Amino acid sequence: MKKLSLSKIVLACTCLIASQVTIASTANERPNILVILTDDMGYADVGFNGSPDIKTPSLDQLAEDGTMMTAAYNAHPFCGPSRAGIMTGRYPHKFGSQFNLPTSDRSGGLGIPTSEVFISEVLQDAGYHTGAIGKWHLGEDGDFHPNNRGFDDFYGFLNGGHDYFPSQFKPQYEKQRKQGLNHSIFHYLRPLEYNGKEVDVNEYLTDALSGQAVDFIKDSASDKDQPFFLYLAYNAPHSPMQAKEEDMAQFPDIKDKKRKTYAGMVYAVDRGVKEIVQTLKDTGQYENTLIVFFSDNGGKPNLGANNYPLRGRKGSVLEGGYRTPMFFHWPKKIPKGETFTFPISTLDLYPTFAELAGAEIPKNKKLDGKNITSSLIAGTNPRPGEMIYAVRHRNGFSEAAARKDNWKIVNVSGNKWQLFDVEIDSSESNDLSKEYPLVVREMVAEMEMWSWTNSQPAWFHIHAEGTLWREKAMPRFGETFSLKDKADNELNVH
Amino acid sequence: MKKLSLSKIVLACTCLIASQVTIASTANERPNILVILTDDMGYADVGFNGSPDIKTPSLDQLAEDGTMMTAAYNAHPFCGPSRAGIMTGRYPHKFGSQFNLPTSDRSGGLGIPTSEVFISEVLQDAGYHTGAIGKWHLGEDGDFHPNNRGFDDFYGFLNGGHDYFPSQFKPQYEKQRKQGLNHSIFHYLRPLEYNGKEVDVNEYLTDALSGQAVDFIKDSASDKDQPFFLYLAYNAPHSPMQAKEEDMAQFPDIKDKKRKTYAGMVYAVDRGVKEIVQTLKDTGQYENTLIVFFSDNGGKPNLGANNYPLRGRKGSVLEGGYRTPMFFHWPKKIPKGETFTFPISTLDLYPTFAELAGAEIPKNKKLDGKNITSSLIAGTNPRPGEMIYAVRHRNGFSEAAARKDNWKIVNVSGNKWQLFDVEIDSSESNDLSKEYPLVVREMVAEMEMWSWTNSQPAWFHIHAEGTLWREKAMPRFGETFSLKDKADNELNVH
Amino acid sequence: MKKLSLSKIVLACTCLIASQVTIASTANERPNILVILTDDMGYADVGFNGSPDIKTPSLDQLAEDGTMMTAAYNAHPFCGPSRAGIMTGRYPHKFGSQFNLPTSDRSGGLGIPTSEVFISEVLQDAGYHTGAIGKWHLGEDGDFHPNNRGFDDFYGFLNGGHDYFPSQFKPQYEKQRKQGLNHSIFHYLRPLEYNGKEVDVNEYLTDALSGQAVDFIKDSASDKDQPFFLYLAYNAPHSPMQAKEEDMAQFPDIKDKKRKTYAGMVYAVDRGVKEIVQTLKDTGQYENTLIVFFSDNGGKPNLGANNYPLRGRKGSVLEGGYRTPMFFHWPKKIPKGETFTFPISTLDLYPTFAELAGAEIPKNKKLDGKNITSSLIAGTNPRPGEMIYAVRHRNGFSEAAARKDNWKIVNVSGNKWQLFDVEIDSSESNDLSKEYPLVVREMVAEMEMWSWTNSQPAWFHIHAEGTLWREKAMPRFGETFSLKDKADNELNVH
Repeated sequence: MKKLSLSKIVLACTCLIASQVTIASTANERPNILVILTDDMGYADVGFNGSPDIKTPSLDQLAEDGTMMTAAYNAHPFCGPSRAGIMTGRYPHKFGSQFNLPTSDRSGGLGIPTSEVFISEVLQDAGYHTGAIGKWHLGEDGDFHPNNRGFDDFYGFLNGGHDYFPSQFKPQYEKQRKQGLNHSIFHYLRPLEYNGKEVDVNEYLTDALSGQAVDFIKDSASDKDQPFFLYLAYNAPHSPMQAKEEDMAQFPDIKDKKRKTYAGMVYAVDRGVKEIVQTLKDTGQYENTLIVFFSDNGGKPNLGANNYPLRGRKGSVLEGGYRTPMFFHWPKKIPKGETFTFPISTLDLYPTFAELAGAEIPKNKKLDGKNITSSLIAGTNPRPGEMIYAVRHRNGFSEAAARKDNWKIVNVSGNKWQLFDVEIDSSESNDLSKEYPLVVREMVAEMEMWSWTNSQPAWFHIHAEGTLWREKAMPRFGETFSLKDKADNELNVH
Repeated sequence: MKKLSLSKIVLACTCLIASQVTIASTANERPNILVILTDDMGYADVGFNGSPDIKTPSLDQLAEDGTMMTAAYNAHPFCGPSRAGIMTGRYPHKFGSQFNLPTSDRSGGLGIPTSEVFISEVLQDAGYHTGAIGKWHLGEDGDFHPNNRGFDDFYGFLNGGHDYFPSQFKPQYEKQRKQGLNHSIFHYLRPLEYNGKEVDVNEYLTDALSGQAVDFIKDSASDKDQPFFLYLAYNAPHSPMQAKEEDMAQFPDIKDKKRKTYAGMVYAVDRGVKEIVQTLKDTGQYENTLIVFFSDNGGKPNLGANNYPLRGRKGSVLEGGYRTPMFFHWPKKIPKGETFTFPISTLDLYPTFAELAGAEIPKNKKLDGKNITSSLIAGTNPRPGEMIYAVRHRNGFSEAAARKDNWKIVNVSGNKWQLFDVEIDSSESNDLSKEYPLVVREMVAEMEMWSWTNSQPAWFHIHAEGTLWREKAMPRFGETFSLKDKADNELNVH
Repeated sequence: MKKLSLSKIVLACTCLIASQVTIASTANERPNILVILTDDMGYADVGFNGSPDIKTPSLDQLAEDGTMMTAAYNAHPFCGPSRAGIMTGRYPHKFGSQFNLPTSDRSGGLGIPTSEVFISEVLQDAGYHTGAIGKWHLGEDGDFHPNNRGFDDFYGFLNGGHDYFPSQFKPQYEKQRKQGLNHSIFHYLRPLEYNGKEVDVNEYLTDALSGQAVDFIKDSASDKDQPFFLYLAYNAPHSPMQAKEEDMAQFPDIKDKKRKTYAGMVYAVDRGVKEIVQTLKDTGQYENTLIVFFSDNGGKPNLGANNYPLRGRKGSVLEGGYRTPMFFHWPKKIPKGETFTFPISTLDLYPTFAELAGAEIPKNKKLDGKNITSSLIAGTNPRPGEMIYAVRHRNGFSEAAARKDNWKIVNVSGNKWQLFDVEIDSSESNDLSKEYPLVVREMVAEMEMWSWTNSQPAWFHIHAEGTLWREKAMPRFGETFSLKDKADNELNVH
């Protein structure tokens, strides 16, 4: 035994950053980064992902010219936590943000903890011109405002949703204001803002956001040395279900009124994307812009969405709840016409973007995702044997799921773990838990370990959730991760 | 759309500091500041505020020569949190101090979080000679001791109350000590201290505190360049109900024994104030001393107090619980003979004192009150359209109230919000909630928003409160702020 | 009254460090410090402490040549918190570590808070060569690993226990690994490690640990100017009950199989100690090495242990749960052949070791123990009138006990405090609470005060404990410290 003089030996790092493949990214080669996010859009609701009835020609063209992901997972099956995951690169459970902010319209001083450095801050510090357009939903006031979280520009609305037609929401807003209301005006009706200042909107909301994106891209073109990062967060096709007649008219074969409205709302996004692409081309930025498209979670069939072939819907940890259509498009680097089937997470975007931007991630920043650039290019699995998690607390227990390679364990009933080979069974129809008990046991064990460092929620969307949490002694991981049928007697000595 | 290069745009600040009107306050003009606080004194228990039977000639003269406030609110309807509000300038709910410290006599290492800078520290740092005399009740040990929270001098007792007659409490204390007790001696019997050292007291307690204040003022007069800040916190007329015979003899017309004792206790304070005023005059400090007088919360009628015409009593968020008699007296600046009827809060004292002292408030200090100096002088409403809150957790739900301009909403039953025009109906007898549902809705909405950033209690006065809190999944704001009859269907689209 | 200009007067310090008697300890005189810890060993299971059947000749010789303690208390009656106490010098209740780490084998990122500086760090910073051998159980990953908590060397296993025979545990481990398990392999079967790297073990575990200690001591001898601190934490005689045949053969008179196995396991430790002592002598370090021997908590009679004459067993706050056999052996300083009967705590080791090493304790480090060096040498009570506490949360209430001088109060039923004169009644058989009600009252009052600053648990060993904690609104100190029969009416005025 040798006597080591080292006073500190740094051991295993718990974060998942690994294989930091260096892509040559000198300043003048750094790409623009454009995230296009839809809201509550179903897995089968864009043409490139198999929609039988909704046309999205512009998105489809981008997908075709880039690499399409078939197993991309959100960090959470609903809005606020999913977006917190994108911005922070961490599971929202790790910093108490596993619920939407309370009753949205009245978030009074709450927001994603400022201890979490956003990707926008990292890119801003690296010299990017940064913009956020559309829905924010990560905290409204002071330190939580997008302008204080790394975005030079913010145009949109701060909370969880908005009406689409100014001709309707503006008079409703005025009426309530004249009644003396202020704090209790429904937030879907409030004026939009640009960098903290109210702005007047006269277009269908999706068009206003697309137009703003076009302007941002044009402005950015003027400075060749400063690439841009634009986070374009459409609220379409989130409720309220409001589409333009001309967009609905694109779908004469859809008879169902709900689906027709939904289809029109998606189509409006696609029209916007068409303009955006054209602007990128016109300004000579098309070749060196990375476009990443996805939805924040699964769709709601009762509002017209279609998650086929996935089981489950928004809110669920079944595939339909948080597996999202996604593509990467970047002519200079991303392979064209490829389909990438390995599981990835939207948590991967943070370290991936930072790498492409040559940006420095703060030394103490914890990340749960990984830089997937080289895997995308090479077509390899970026996390063989590693897990992607989803946990949603509901009705007094914790729905939980984890994906590793081809396997997925899932527990939505609170008392039974199922196992699916989602690579061949994405509709989670063939439970293999009895055939592979040791796979279940190992994955549940790993997930339980992951759960120990989850935080208590820092807030609840509605108070009833908080009451339930306390009354049910949540998160009840003890029950969640118990394996009633595990063959411990055989395997363990004690 | 212009491209902003600002990397950080500082937006709305959540604290209420506003309209920082600069009063010329060069060093040699800075006033002495003398706070005279009574304990559990009723709204109608001083002459200047309408007492039909209790004489307080010295207080009345000061009130007459200054400005009397008729709508001054404490931060809480009972002792510890109310005082925490005075010292910190924040609602105690914001830093977990919404209960009295546990069982008072045994606070073992707890106190108002040191993250909250006290007004005494701000004034001390600005060069004031600072003293606290009387009851502390904000933490006893180490960092929580008044000498470590901005007071050069402390004379008094650290916990929530004390007996009045040394001839009684000293032998009782000695008896228990000789029995081998120490930690379990009732704290009302313990020796007083001066800067951490036991002192012997041989006078009626109120007289001892007044005498100490006189000494402090005399000492302070010797250094003309150093103004003083004296926080004189009488425990009178808090229980135990113990008055001097000669003070009770001042009230031959009061037949009720309880009321007579109570009156005598108040009268002893007034006698002390007389001496203090004389000392200020004798030492040439009278003209430039701001005297602020008030009680920490409402009175207890069962112990002889009278809150007329207000409903409610100590502990309630009805007006009688936390609206207090108050005057400001300062010949050099404060108008003489005025009555100020706009709602103000004892939370306003912190920024007001700092302004008058030309003292710098630490950059990150959060404040819930506002500098009211110019409003007092001009006789204008310092917070038009802004709220003053009161929340008291009790019996498994949260009593809540808010005042805005003439309006007050209040919920003491746990299930019904009432609305009063307390400007003309200070006795809260005419509920207008049905007539003005939108006013209720708006004020409840704003208060709910305020509640989101309230902290969990850091302690409970008695353990039963803590058990109740957990068992009832408190604070139950979800129920508190629900409007069972709100006309949402009509007003909201969704 | 004098006007003090001191802006801050530092008052009473809550920690118990006192009487810092300076022992001459220049660098070349500083002793080596060797802690030998056993696991779950009963009070009567070493020869020097009265075992009728187990031989421990080497330990007995050391005890005889040093000073034996008859009233040494662990910080907790079970493993993890007891060890946290040793390392931090604080009651584990003060930093949320009052439970074992969750399910041991999967501690995923949890550990004793790094805000607590370990004694090993203090000694390492003072120039000691530091080593930990055996069981850790204080956190596994990253910052919690022994190499990151002040130990130059770590050899052993990170969690709460381990099998003894490599011929058994190695094939079991390999079998499970081949089944694809990793996170769910029972931790008692995992390979040992040396500074983060797996090592192969081919000896009976106790022998491997002893051998490693011998090596460490030999290595340390080479540098005369650098003393060593070795924390040798045997897992013997903790379950699994596995002894070598030759060790069991030492006890032909023991017929009971369990006891025989247990005896063999203890004997193996004694054999190791023999080698260690010989190595100290061979390397010239024997005279200047302080050896401190003790167990982490009481024994489990159902596994063969014997706590005679104490009542209770591992897990209980009765004496048998946390009073441990102990000796100090150090020829240069510690009296030979003495028996020290005053109550001491393993929390005392931290400040005592620091003093002997001439090491500087960080200014803000809180400690609950005290430097007992001079008391040991002089044979005096190191804490007259001061308390040693034990609190264990179980089944919805908090078992609690405190020792002061000859007295011990204890409450294991949740509703009744008992009082014993444990100096003459170490078996806690004669309840004196009715005879000395004021002693009970005073001690309970002091303990309640101590409890106010206890933290909520940062984790639970098993989730059921956490659920119980929340459902029962733990820690229920309100009930724990109530004195249903206290004579308050007589003693208190109010």
